[in-house]
Amino acid sequence: MRIARVRHERRTSTAIIEGDVVHLVSGGPFGSLTRTGVTVPLSDVQLLVPVQPSKIVAMAVNYHSHAGDRSVSPKPEAFLKAPSSLIGPGEAIVIPAGAENVHAEAEVVVVIGRRARGVRAAEADRYIFGYTAGNDVSARDWQRLDTQWWRAKSADTFTAVGPWIETDLTPDRIPVEGRISGRRIQRGDTSQLVHSIRACIEAVSAVMTLERGDLLFTGTPETTAAMAPGDVAEVEVEGIGILRNPVVAG
Amino acid sequence: MRIARVRHERRTSTAIIEGDVVHLVSGGPFGSLTRTGVTVPLSDVQLLVPVQPSKIVAMAVNYHSHAGDRSVSPKPEAFLKAPSSLIGPGEAIVIPAGAENVHAEAEVVVVIGRRARGVRAAEADRYIFGYTAGNDVSARDWQRLDTQWWRAKSADTFTAVGPWIETDLTPDRIPVEGRISGRRIQRGDTSQLVHSIRACIEAVSAVMTLERGDLLFTGTPETTAAMAPGDVAEVEVEGIGILRNPVVAG
Repeated sequence: MRIARVRHERRTSTAIIEGDVVHLVSGGPFGSLTRTGVTVPLSDVQLLVPVQPSKIVAMAVNYHSHAGDRSVSPKPEAFLKAPSSLIGPGEAIVIPAGAENVHAEAEVVVVIGRRARGVRAAEADRYIFGYTAGNDVSARDWQRLDTQWWRAKSADTFTAVGPWIETDLTPDRIPVEGRISGRRIQRGDTSQLVHSIRACIEAVSAVMTLERGDLLFTGTPETTAAMAPGDVAEVEVEGIGILRNPVVAG
Repeated sequence: MRIARVRHERRTSTAIIEGDVVHLVSGGPFGSLTRTGVTVPLSDVQLLVPVQPSKIVAMAVNYHSHAGDRSVSPKPEAFLKAPSSLIGPGEAIVIPAGAENVHAEAEVVVVIGRRARGVRAAEADRYIFGYTAGNDVSARDWQRLDTQWWRAKSADTFTAVGPWIETDLTPDRIPVEGRISGRRIQRGDTSQLVHSIRACIEAVSAVMTLERGDLLFTGTPETTAAMAPGDVAEVEVEGIGILRNPVVAG
């Protein structure tokens, strides 16, 4: 099932997307999803960030193809992204003043479905609500210059997600592709992750309670590239769809 | 004014603290603070985390007395702490299994009062709601071993704040002291910060929107020390009070 948050006639609503039809539902994405009976063409709604997380956890260097010369850590390595950096489909990624070399990172993103603490990898699927596409925008110069990746990963607009949550996927092999202005930059699938989605949920939930709605960025494949104002960044996840964001100067 | 969140007779409420008297108020801490007329002795309520932030930003190595042999950065350096790591007064700091050398870091914490984006240092006071005491619990081994400080700073229970928010302080010289089981470990005041509170608000809000209720940990002075199960960690901020948390094994 495809679950979105949409803006329609000045109201925000949870919705089920079936093809080009948007079925408005009552309540939030984790509720009973009762259809209100109101349907709207997909082209008539604005798709919003599909969920409002209390935190965003992201995995660092989690594809061999992205590691390059760097060694891959034998344990999952994570970092945090600020909720204030979230944008939805179609919203502009703003290259901040003073940031150069700002890269797109195409990723499969897990949406947590219920509170997870000390979850074993074998049980992890029960805590996954669904998946969405994500762009973990990264200012490479700041990433190198700063003690921690706070600005590099959490400047405003640096976390794009959407277009919706797909609940009918399994984590084993989800293909993801990153494009900048139509040019394919990255490609991979979750079978190539250094630490699987289930292993990452075990590692993160061992120390940090994951709440319903929290997002887990699972890592980016291959070699990323810089975006420039005027570009359009796309992240396509097979079985979900395309997250598309224009790029503008700050 | 001292503003707290309290638990009383199974209900959570915002409150104004005057001496040993708790005045329950309607609405949240950022509202009109209308007194309900109900007063309760301070000893009859449980003090909770005084605010529920959308994010927690913390400053790294922001006292010369804490830097030791390390060089101090000419620009403010920040990192993020997960909201899931928050605990209030009296709640236990849990030393996680596998973490050794877990230190207390006594800090003055700023509570943001309204959305701040691109705020200049000279205007920063207008965005400050008040101040509280904080313990930025830090697992030194994880801090050294991991790529980023995710576990080291954001394991569950690693962010203690309270006992309340004091709105009648100015940021220029707020003394803070850290004690472990009655032994004084750290002492400093915000006049000794490498980057002042106002400068930090300017630096953070230049890239990242600060929301109402967000917390800014301002840095910790001098040399910190490890806590062990059975200890009691105390952070005393002059003009606010004492944040006290027992330490237990995970």
